[in-house]
Amino acid sequence: MTTKYRLMIPGPTPTPPQVAVAGALPLVDERIPRFALLFAELLDRLRLVFGTPEDVLVFASSTTGAMESAIANLFSPGDRILVVENGFFAARWSAIARAYGVDVVVQAQPWGTTVDSAAVARALAADPSIRAAVCVHCETSTGAVSDLAAFGAATADVLSIVDAASSLGACPVRAGENGLDVVVSGCQKALMTPPGLSFVALSGRAWRAQEEARLPRFYFDWRTMKDALDHHGATPFTPAVGLIVQLDVALRQLLQEGLEAVFARHVRLGRAVRAAVTTLGLSPLAGDDDAHAVVTAALLPPGVPAGPLAATLLDEHGVQVTTGNAGFADRLIRIGHCGYVDRYDVVVAIAALEMALARAGHPVSPGAAVAAAQEAYGGAGLSTQVPA
Amino acid sequence: MTTKYRLMIPGPTPTPPQVAVAGALPLVDERIPRFALLFAELLDRLRLVFGTPEDVLVFASSTTGAMESAIANLFSPGDRILVVENGFFAARWSAIARAYGVDVVVQAQPWGTTVDSAAVARALAADPSIRAAVCVHCETSTGAVSDLAAFGAATADVLSIVDAASSLGACPVRAGENGLDVVVSGCQKALMTPPGLSFVALSGRAWRAQEEARLPRFYFDWRTMKDALDHHGATPFTPAVGLIVQLDVALRQLLQEGLEAVFARHVRLGRAVRAAVTTLGLSPLAGDDDAHAVVTAALLPPGVPAGPLAATLLDEHGVQVTTGNAGFADRLIRIGHCGYVDRYDVVVAIAALEMALARAGHPVSPGAAVAAAQEAYGGAGLSTQVPA
Repeated sequence: MTTKYRLMIPGPTPTPPQVAVAGALPLVDERIPRFALLFAELLDRLRLVFGTPEDVLVFASSTTGAMESAIANLFSPGDRILVVENGFFAARWSAIARAYGVDVVVQAQPWGTTVDSAAVARALAADPSIRAAVCVHCETSTGAVSDLAAFGAATADVLSIVDAASSLGACPVRAGENGLDVVVSGCQKALMTPPGLSFVALSGRAWRAQEEARLPRFYFDWRTMKDALDHHGATPFTPAVGLIVQLDVALRQLLQEGLEAVFARHVRLGRAVRAAVTTLGLSPLAGDDDAHAVVTAALLPPGVPAGPLAATLLDEHGVQVTTGNAGFADRLIRIGHCGYVDRYDVVVAIAALEMALARAGHPVSPGAAVAAAQEAYGGAGLSTQVPA
Repeated sequence: MTTKYRLMIPGPTPTPPQVAVAGALPLVDERIPRFALLFAELLDRLRLVFGTPEDVLVFASSTTGAMESAIANLFSPGDRILVVENGFFAARWSAIARAYGVDVVVQAQPWGTTVDSAAVARALAADPSIRAAVCVHCETSTGAVSDLAAFGAATADVLSIVDAASSLGACPVRAGENGLDVVVSGCQKALMTPPGLSFVALSGRAWRAQEEARLPRFYFDWRTMKDALDHHGATPFTPAVGLIVQLDVALRQLLQEGLEAVFARHVRLGRAVRAAVTTLGLSPLAGDDDAHAVVTAALLPPGVPAGPLAATLLDEHGVQVTTGNAGFADRLIRIGHCGYVDRYDVVVAIAALEMALARAGHPVSPGAAVAAAQEAYGGAGLSTQVPA
């Protein structure tokens, strides 16, 4: 028998069996009434996950497309924005903005830190020409999950843009309560669906900014999308109907488990992974905080490069984790624990990591990290809820 | 028992069972070696379908995204292009170009006509400032399939851009042989895959134009995509891995049937549908030509509006066809016959259409149109090849 393949990265994540099977159903066209009904209900469920009663748009694209849509729909050439760069994915926002001729003020922070919202507030106060501030909720390159209530408060007078690519469905976003104007995300992480759908949740202030923005856009034009939704209950261009049907199943499962229970499960999974890697002598880059519930980026001991370690895990144990981004490429392994993941997925990943680290010459006390994960996860219960 | 749902529109089209089942397989991450191998082979198969040895790029988006990529990667503000508008989808090219500040010269032609390449040549000769000419291979709103050899010859001195959204895999495109610089398409029509992937096939001249183009782009930037492919065998942003695995299965089936056999099957399906609708007193908008092998747009008799007819077909017979676009909304029904379709799918659609037309008060000789379809399709054989 071949080794089973186990996906433990921060996206794409494994699909629940019910979501997988929905991918094999006969395709339906988006123009039939039962699809329109499904899509309308799906948008309502997405609103619950984003925590907003306002508009959520769905695009056929990676999350990067939704990020680009935020830049192209909100700004005009020469507009100035602030981007908090505390990791690899935050820097992508600056790159997109610059590609569109938007002036970027970077708030550079060390990798592994959370967003310094007090510094954001100071920067905005010091430069009234800044029209918007951008941050990443869960910086997938470091595992750091930031406080969106603080970011929303600091950005009350400008447009606030949040990248919730890996956090949506794993951590509370509460777009409405936190006063966030634009939140983007995708389907392939905590929403447990194969990649190819991206989302944008929008406030009324975002819509007003959209009306004045002069940057060119067509495929990602929010107004075109909203008009098609409002008048035809459909998207203006062929939607990824197969993925939408799968996402519908996934969202029903999430809401049946209950969003608060889902968030609590992710907190406990994060505790388990951090306790385990710490026991192994690795160090969570973002520190030990319950907020960091999506992915753990663990600094490796000197002499244990990430590439060969990840290759051993995949080739010999079938466990796929990933390495670090950019300058941290060989210094980090990143273990995803978001989406359709329970504590025994963590147990497998940690058991394999014990073996791979030992193979790499690192001192390992067999079973100790697995035990630490079990201990940190806490009492049984939440993780064993099986959706109907 | 409920009525079975049968999808007979020009996209999305039904998926073969093998493609559907591939949608239920466990997700794999794009960074593992076996996915990189699958993706490299898939690009080779796409090159065969496009008929080019050069670059083919794959985006996670609807085909409209690939169209936008052509505008944003080739041009600078104020550049002038010629768009042949002979239907609804051709006009979308003009809309995208204008959204990006590109100057559009429209060659307006009646709906149902094929591209007048002699007129294109005259227009280009008369205005040397025109940098590119755009046409749609199969205009899905009318069924007209144009001659790409003639278009390629007429545009030899400028960039030629072809929209093969619904024709790719149903009709020969031969991008290399026809000297086409940019050909865009998607996976959800003749390529028999759920929607969400788009393609761009590029010539060397297109790459040179890309280097000079100053329009903003990021998600759809060709260079970013090619660099990631060349250096990492991967896409720069999360690819729609599930759909790519499904497309791989579909392309293997197409190539096993043989591209020429696939094209011949589509020609015969087109003959069958045109013969049938003509027998019923409807009139193919694009005329009776073997080239029109993808979709038949049939003009309805006075007093038979398309909306209620299509609703009857769907609600009472489970057969989904579609109505006309824009000004032809209520005057046309459009029957798709591309992708995973054989002559008995046509038989069902026509048998249902006989019933629905009779219900609408139109005189029908029961069975005559079905017989005409069978007769026009010709001897058995091609349609019954079942892929392994």
